[in-house]
Formats: sequence, structure tokens, C-alpha cells
Amino acid sequence: MKLLNYKAQFRSYKMLKVLSILFVMVFSFGKVATAQEKKQMVRLAKIKVDPVQLKNYTTALNEQMNTAIRVEPGVLTYYAVADKSNPSNITILEIYADTATYKAHIETAHFKKYKETVKDMVKSLKLVDVTLLNSAKKPGM
Amino acid sequence: MKLLNYKAQFRSYKMLKVLSILFVMVFSFGKVATAQEKKQMVRLAKIKVDPVQLKNYTTALNEQMNTAIRVEPGVLTYYAVADKSNPSNITILEIYADTATYKAHIETAHFKKYKETVKDMVKSLKLVDVTLLNSAKKPGM
Repeated sequence: MKLLNYKAQFRSYKMLKVLSILFVMVFSFGKVATAQEKKQMVRLAKIKVDPVQLKNYTTALNEQMNTAIRVEPGVLTYYAVADKSNPSNITILEIYADTATYKAHIETAHFKKYKETVKDMVKSLKLVDVTLLNSAKKPGM
Repeated sequence: MKLLNYKAQFRSYKMLKVLSILFVMVFSFGKVATAQEKKQMVRLAKIKVDPVQLKNYTTALNEQMNTAIRVEPGVLTYYAVADKSNPSNITILEIYADTATYKAHIETAHFKKYKETVKDMVKSLKLVDVTLLNSAKKPGM
């Protein structure tokens, strides 16, 4: 009887250990990427803009970003930032549902309009394909 | 009587024009930044990691990001990405409610633990203060 009790205790100790490890995995290292997230296409666009035309450029960029998010189901996230020390250095973080979405995106009328509008405003453009390691945000951000 | 009608029509035409302009401003150029958003501190951290220690580095980074978002009210957003062509090149987009939040953040136990853990993993670190030009996202992203 004593031995049985000991075995039962040992089993619940093992169970507790497994549960603790699972808890730590889920809450310390963030969520596991879903199949959908693994298909995502994530990119950094690094753009140097003619400083004189910066205001017109950002107007065209914002219009493109807002329209794509509004009308294209697979265009998921855009963040555009400008260096404080050199506001004509712009970096855009872009997340698309998959590469097919991106290919469709660059064929849309609003994207083609943006490219045409900014063609003499952009001095250089570097597209860097990246992997999303983690995103952590406050609810609603 | 005819003149009065004409004046009334002219007034409603003017009203319609003002409303149209407001509509275009709101829906074409995105939301106007709130006072809260203007106070935000936004940054790109550009990190080169020792490739041999990359797995340990991303574990420490994820733990830091997830903890800060969970326990610090003013830590709003983190996105960490790695270049596909060179996964040890990492870029982090960071958004804090204001600079006071950031100063408090770097004094927290979890941030100090992260810095201590990664001090021999990070080969270079470049912090670039930026201005958020626009963020546009699908609901729930």
C-alpha cells in the first residue's frame, strides 16, 4: 500500500513537471507560429527619398498603404518609419499573407499609381526579405 | 423667392464641398496622429549576432520582449525580424509610450537579465531613433 502511494505521488510529480515545462514554453517564449504565419511573406523596404520631394512622397506612400490594407485581403501589416537624424531615410516593415498575395498586390491599380507617382522621388530602394522572429504587442496596438 | 432658393442651394453646395474635402483627408491620408502618438518613442535596433549563438540569442530576446509587453504598461509594440540571406542580422521595431517609459524599461530586472545573457552573443548594436510615418494593419494584426 505504501509503495502504491509512493508510485502515485511520483506520477503526479512527473505530471506537474511536464505541465510546468509546457507553461514556461507557452508563456516565456511566446506563441508557436501557426501554419498561416509560416506562409507569410515579411519584408523590409529601405528607401532613400529626394529630400525636396519628401512631403509628396509620404503622401503617396500613405495613400498606397491605407488603400492596400483596406481593399486587399492578404495585405496584413505596414509600418513606415523615417530616421530622425535623416528623415529621407525610410524603412517599411511589410507583412503579406503569402507570396501570391504580394504578387497580386504589385499588379493593383493603387500600387501601380504609387510607383508611377514616386518614380522620380525615390533615389534608392533596397528590398530585404526577412523572417518574423517574434511580434509582441499590447492589445489594440 | 427664387433668389433665396439659389442662396440656400449655394450654401448646401459649399457644405457638400467641405464635407467631401474632410472625407478625402480622413480616408486618403490615414488618421491624424493623436497627442499620445506624438509622444511615442519609436526605434529600430539593428543587431548582428554571433551565428553560433543565434538560437540562444533569439530565446533570450523573445523572453525579454514577451515579458516587457506583459508587465510594463508603456511598452507597446515589438517586431523582431531576421534577414533571410543572413539570419544573424536582426532588426527590431520598438514602440514605447514615451521616453520616460523607455528609461524605466532599461532599468527593469528582465531587461538587465537579457543584456547580461546576450553580452557575449551580440557582435554589434546600432540604435536608430525614428519617427512613425504611418502604421496600417488589418483588424487583429
